Amino acid sequence: MGEFYKIVFIGSGNVAYHFSLELYKKGHKIIQIFSHNEKTAKELALKVNSEYQTDINAINKNADIYIISIPDDKISEICLKLNLVDKLVLHTSGLKEMEILHNSSENIGIIYPLQTLTKNKPANLSKAPICIEANNEINLRKVKSLAESISSNVIEITSQQRKIIHLAAVFACNFTTRMYAIAYDLLKKENIDFKILIPLIEETAMNAQYGDPAILQTGPAKRNDINTIREHQLLLSDKPDYKNIYTFITENILKQNIH
Amino acid sequence: MGEFYKIVFIGSGNVAYHFSLELYKKGHKIIQIFSHNEKTAKELALKVNSEYQTDINAINKNADIYIISIPDDKISEICLKLNLVDKLVLHTSGLKEMEILHNSSENIGIIYPLQTLTKNKPANLSKAPICIEANNEINLRKVKSLAESISSNVIEITSQQRKIIHLAAVFACNFTTRMYAIAYDLLKKENIDFKILIPLIEETAMNAQYGDPAILQTGPAKRNDINTIREHQLLLSDKPDYKNIYTFITENILKQNIH
Repeated sequence: MGEFYKIVFIGSGNVAYHFSLELYKKGHKIIQIFSHNEKTAKELALKVNSEYQTDINAINKNADIYIISIPDDKISEICLKLNLVDKLVLHTSGLKEMEILHNSSENIGIIYPLQTLTKNKPANLSKAPICIEANNEINLRKVKSLAESISSNVIEITSQQRKIIHLAAVFACNFTTRMYAIAYDLLKKENIDFKILIPLIEETAMNAQYGDPAILQTGPAKRNDINTIREHQLLLSDKPDYKNIYTFITENILKQNIH
Repeated sequence: MGEFYKIVFIGSGNVAYHFSLELYKKGHKIIQIFSHNEKTAKELALKVNSEYQTDINAINKNADIYIISIPDDKISEICLKLNLVDKLVLHTSGLKEMEILHNSSENIGIIYPLQTLTKNKPANLSKAPICIEANNEINLRKVKSLAESISSNVIEITSQQRKIIHLAAVFACNFTTRMYAIAYDLLKKENIDFKILIPLIEETAMNAQYGDPAILQTGPAKRNDINTIREHQLLLSDKPDYKNIYTFITENILKQNIH
């Protein structure tokens, strides 16, 4: 394990929550949680033995590292107000380029966790890929040391690659979660416990390890089974949103069959 | 474990393949594989020490149980040709009613595996739900005994419930597999190894155990992060199919935020 750092978090959402808890647990000192949301800032500060702040002008200037973990479209704006000169400033966004941090400091980098994190449940970060980047070797070494106290799976990734990884993660995580939620909703209407699908969901996820997931595609679309597809569309006739999603993904699978 | 049966399989696709292998392994006697596809019939027959047949008029009439595992829209047609009088005839379809088997015999039932099965890889059936149904108690007992030699998770399910479970499974399995495949394709173009997504995919699937998956929804749509959504749509501008899927699922998640 590397050095211990004094850290200020800017933001108190899902990523700030799990990162600060994890870093605190590993011996780093969280000296301030800044957020416009006083309630979540206070709650998080309590958990990591830190003070909290809602006034951007009262940001503590004595930290080693500042981690900005706020909505993407607010990062540039807050950087203009930070004035951290040569402190190391990181953001945790999957999409935004590292360079947008340059308004806040000359030492900048990225620490992006490729994991789904919500306050509703404990994080599973120890093996999650943490994508890092920095504007020079010294900063990269610091970010790496920090990231390694969160996960054993730290990877250097460019801003361009990170953007695509983030987009791919939306399909592989956010959209599959929505598919599960639609399945849950369909079953609920028939009083069928969603748990019946768990072995199937687990097997489907496990299958992803075998390489190109297209090889293990199954189901009516894969079989060109147009009658089943029509019956499914009929079953969804009172759910136009689900029917549209069903139809678009099905057509996309049918197209793969031709190639 | 119950009785051992003499079984004829009608079909040599993914389900017939894994069911016959599993039943053979557990001591049942597979006496015939019937299929119009001589190649797959022969291959499977070899594996389960059975004979094979491509002529429907030469179906062996001495089995205890006949398992029809062919495309849904072919089941009714083949039943008319079977003439099995009082033999127990089952099908493995998620969608089709049990009653369509009545043209083949007076003793009928369902044995539907809620699992993704392809010949490309070993099946994981031992804990997969097997949905069963039969037209009387005696037949139900037989189907149950047969199904229990495949899985410890045998559930009695009506044809109406099975239809909805099958539809839900298309979302939870087939469509998530397509989401993984799209993610794979996006990463491949940037020379990024798909393995980077495996911890995220596993965590997302694990999360489904916690109840309504909508509670653990994350991502730009969940955050109403319209700028990120626009940037993602821009990244997908040369992939209109992916962009459409992205847009439809995103809009569906955005709608949930309002409720």
